[in-house]
Formats: sequence, structure tokens, C-alpha cells
Amino acid sequence: MLAETIGRISPLDAAAMGDARARLDALTKPPGSLGRLEELAVQLAGITGHVPPPLEKRVIYVFAADHGVTAERVSTYPSVVTAQMVSNFLRGGAAINVLARQAGASLMIVDVGIAGDVERHPRLVSRKIAHGTRNFARESAMSREEAVRAVEIGISVFEPCQLAGMGEMGIGNTTAAAAIVAAATGRPAAEVAGGGAGLDQAGVERKIDVIERALAKHRPDGRDGLSLLQTVGGFEIGALAGAMLAAAAARVPVVIDGFISTAAAIVAARLCPAVAPHLIAAHRSAERGHPLALAELGLRPLLDLDLRLGEGTGAALAFHLIDAACRVTREMATFEEAGVSGNR
Amino acid sequence: MLAETIGRISPLDAAAMGDARARLDALTKPPGSLGRLEELAVQLAGITGHVPPPLEKRVIYVFAADHGVTAERVSTYPSVVTAQMVSNFLRGGAAINVLARQAGASLMIVDVGIAGDVERHPRLVSRKIAHGTRNFARESAMSREEAVRAVEIGISVFEPCQLAGMGEMGIGNTTAAAAIVAAATGRPAAEVAGGGAGLDQAGVERKIDVIERALAKHRPDGRDGLSLLQTVGGFEIGALAGAMLAAAAARVPVVIDGFISTAAAIVAARLCPAVAPHLIAAHRSAERGHPLALAELGLRPLLDLDLRLGEGTGAALAFHLIDAACRVTREMATFEEAGVSGNR
Repeated sequence: MLAETIGRISPLDAAAMGDARARLDALTKPPGSLGRLEELAVQLAGITGHVPPPLEKRVIYVFAADHGVTAERVSTYPSVVTAQMVSNFLRGGAAINVLARQAGASLMIVDVGIAGDVERHPRLVSRKIAHGTRNFARESAMSREEAVRAVEIGISVFEPCQLAGMGEMGIGNTTAAAAIVAAATGRPAAEVAGGGAGLDQAGVERKIDVIERALAKHRPDGRDGLSLLQTVGGFEIGALAGAMLAAAAARVPVVIDGFISTAAAIVAARLCPAVAPHLIAAHRSAERGHPLALAELGLRPLLDLDLRLGEGTGAALAFHLIDAACRVTREMATFEEAGVSGNR
Repeated sequence: MLAETIGRISPLDAAAMGDARARLDALTKPPGSLGRLEELAVQLAGITGHVPPPLEKRVIYVFAADHGVTAERVSTYPSVVTAQMVSNFLRGGAAINVLARQAGASLMIVDVGIAGDVERHPRLVSRKIAHGTRNFARESAMSREEAVRAVEIGISVFEPCQLAGMGEMGIGNTTAAAAIVAAATGRPAAEVAGGGAGLDQAGVERKIDVIERALAKHRPDGRDGLSLLQTVGGFEIGALAGAMLAAAAARVPVVIDGFISTAAAIVAARLCPAVAPHLIAAHRSAERGHPLALAELGLRPLLDLDLRLGEGTGAALAFHLIDAACRVTREMATFEEAGVSGNR
């Protein structure tokens, strides 16, 4: 399933991008004066083949799982909060619920490996691989087979839509994400690991030490997405990578959220480098290693709001800018229609 | 009218800001993890006294005027484009029309000094002071009386609303704005003047020279808003400053747009320093001197999208973030309501 999905990922549609650029230049504004919105309109044309694409059906995927590495005291919150927050998502009280409603997106919440049991709920998609990963300070986070399964869950739950956002919930997952980014970029953990949900300096140092020891022990291959996932990853990170691949294969624009989503995008790009041009980076988070992770993918984020919540919240906020890019392309008058003089 | 308006501008409401902070900290997210959205929610509480404020009635003000300094060839577009673009605004085909519709805002379009005649239209507010300013390379842009009149037009057209955006249209107005910012900050024109709507390098050098000579000739007092306006300003810049003062006096949050709006905000702040905390900077534009102008006011922009269009387009985009800040404050569940454990 993974190989089949990867095989369907194409380069961006250059003809549609040219059409989008021509349309933008004909509109009543100095050429290029809408900056990143224009770049976004061109990218959206390249991904979808439409100028502008319809983006009515929009889904934010929230993959949730727990992390054995929390035993090393790398998080301010106990693992039980993962299940509690997923219940909060199902009842509509979390930040992602509020921001997805504002952005006109529905949520798909997927349990890929929460440690505790979440209440049964018609809107919860249960694909639990295990009750959390193993503690990667001591052993690999998961087996190779589980890594493939996580990615394929992301692929299989992806449903036809016109705009996708990627978010997550998992206490401890900034540690896994930092380990992935450090291994993939070859940078020391101290340049990648940050405070997560609110670690103090001693906590960050502990986290750095855990990551350095784990990377020395497991020696993941930074060019191999499955190796990164297996050794120091997380189930939700694998599923995110899979959903990104599925979206790119379906020519659906994918908005990635913060540090964890970006680490997952690195895993996806290691599995299939052609995925990167299909990704839209929503924002630069406050997490230390995020700029490095974005640079690894060649992505420039749209927003810079010091967010560090995850859940897909930054992706939901970026949907408004994507809407703006499409609306401008569709609704503005041309110089000719409006009878406005061009530049000298 | 100006003195009366200034007299009604108060400091932010510290009690409401404390209430907003307490509410934000009780919500199901790590404290502070929504970054700038949380700061925005606190500022909105301080401005309005409400946690969160209702923001249904929203107006984007677009003040339009022409500039005599265009005779010095400081713009890529001819002055006639100001009137043409205002007609485009009235017919709904410009970028600001599209983005205001998306943001749920109505537009108020005010002719404060367009050189040409704009078609009569029920939605055009006509308050023409003159057919453009005079060429400030040769003489003061306007009289002191006209400067006061421009500001008072901004005050008088301001109508009760719950959220205000500030935009403009005026071929040549980046030259006036750059002159204001250079005079107010004491920085050389070369550090402030940029390409505007698309000047080439020779054009930018001509613009810098025009500004330097004008400042040397008129010697505006950088601490005096009316002196800045009179010598090197513009009618739309004065009206923007007035509308900002009126909004602050009415405790309505004011979203300023790009470089010209920010120059107007400097004029407003010179008339009444207490206005600054009421201002929300929408974005950092691509225009060279904008970061300097924002820093002069102590404002940090929400967006950074390389916009350089004006019209209020950046302000309209920022409305979505303001909505997000309010929705989060209003709609998220607290830790107690959701039964989620706090941090350790």
C-alpha cells in the first residue's frame, strides 16, 4: 500500500502554475504585491491542477498516540493527558475544535496508539497499534512492521477531500520529533530539542541527553524514513507521514502544523522526496528545532505566532490564508475589466 | 474636535487584561502555548474592557488621495490610477473588496483628496480637501489648516463599530510615508524609502533624493504630527491618523495595515501617545522602512507575507487571527470542565 501510494505522487503541474501566474499578473494590483498569497495561489494550482482549486471539503487529521520515552521525565504533563485531550477533542472543547470550526474544517481524530483507553465515541477512529511506543531510551520505539503499519494507517484513513490539515496529540512527542529531526539533519540534539509544552531548563537538558543517548544507541539511518520511525519515532508521527503521502497522491494540498507535523513530513519526504512540493508549512512554532526542520524540507512557513500547542491549530489558522489566495485569484477584477491603467 | 477626541483616549483596562489572562490560563492547553493569539486576546480585553469582546460589526476604512510629489517621478503608476482604483473599490473588484468580504467587514471608502473626479456612487464618501496635495519637493504638501482638516475628516467619518481596519489608496503615498517616517525617526531616507508599487533602483534613488531634499527644505518637527503632515504628508494619511484616534477614543480595536497606515499611526501617536496600545499591527510589509516604522511605535506585526499592496489588505487578513483569539477565549473548555490533568 505504501509503495502504491508513493507511485502515485507526481511533480506539480507546471502548466497550471503558469496559468495561475498569468491570471495573478492580470489582476488590479502591482504584479507580485500580494507576496506570499500569490506564491500560495501558484503552488495550489500546481498541486491540484486548478486555478484556483475548489477547497470546500476540508479535513484536519489529528493522530494521537503515547510515547514510552515519557518514563525518562521528558514532559511536563503525564501520559494520561493524551487520552484526556482526545476526549476533549471528541466533546469539542479543545483549541483545535474551535479553530477548525472557524476554518470550516471537519476533524478526523484517530487513535493510533494511546496508552489509556479512550471512551468509545462515534467520531473516534480506532486504529490502535499498541498502548504507546516503547521507551526509546532503552529499546527501539517500535518494530519495523509497526512503523510500516503506522504509515499505512495514515494512508488508509485518508479520505477524499479538497484541503487537508495535519495535527497530532501525544504527550512526549516533541522528544520523538526532536530525535527524528536531529537524526535526519545530523545536527546535535541541543540544537533541536526545546521546551515542548513547558519544560524548564533542567528538563530540556534531560531531554537532550535522552535523545543523544538514544541516537548513539540505535544509530538510525537519517535517509530512511522507516528507520527514523522505528528507532525514535511515534505511531502518530508515522500516521501523519502516511496521511501526507496519501494527500499528495490524491493531489490534495496538505497543510502541516508545527514541530511534530514537520518531523513527520521529513519522514514522508525520506519515503518519497516528491512529497515536499505538495506541503504547505502553516507556521513557525516556538519550539527550538522547528526552523531547522522546515529548512530541511525547503519550506517557508506562512505564520509566525509563537504557537507551541500542536493539535493542528496552526494548520487551521493557515486555512484562512489559503482561502484568501484562492478568493483573490477567483474574485478580483483584471486591469482590463476594471479599466485601470497599468504601470509605466 | 481633535482635542476632544484625544481627551477621550484612555489607557488599556488592566483589570480586563488580568481577567483575560486568567481565563486563557484555565483553558485546556499549556499556558501561553497559543503565543501571539493569547497576547492578542489580552490586548483586545484591554482595549474594549470585554473578555472576549464582541466583534460582529467591523469596518475597513479606505482613505484615498493624490500626491503632488508624483511630479518628481517617484511612482511607477500615474496619479489617474488613484481614481481608477477607487472606482474599482466601488464596483467590488479590488483585492480589498475580496479580502474584506472574506473577513466579514464592510468598507467605507472616503475621497479626501483625489486629483481626478471619481464617478458619483452611493457608497463613496466625498470629503475632498483638494485635488491632491502640492508637490512637497517644492513647497509644503498642505497648509496647517488642511492638515487639521484631514485629521478631523478621519475623526468625523468614523462610525460606531466593534473592529476597525485602516487602509488607503494614493499613487505616490509611499514617498510621503517614507518622508514622515524618516523625519519622525531621524533616520536617513535611504533606510526608509523602498520600491513602493514597483520602482526600479534608479527610481528608488530618485525617491530618496526627493525625500532628503524635502526634509532639508521644510525641516518638519518629528515630534509634531501636524508638522509632519503639513510638510510631507498626505490627506489620506491625515485622515487615517484621525480615524485611528477616533477608534481609540471609542475603545474600538484598530488594525493598521502596511507602511502608509503605519506612518499615519506615527502621526496619530505624535498627536496622542496613548493611542499606540490601541493599535494592532496586521503585518510586516515588503516595503523597506516598515520594520523601522513599526519599531517606532513599539508594535510587532501579526503577519509577514511580503505584502506591498496597501488598501487595507493586510488588515483584512489579520481579522481572522483576531477572530481566532476571541473564539479560543470564548469557546475552549477549561481544564476543570474537560477533566484534563494539569502540568506536574
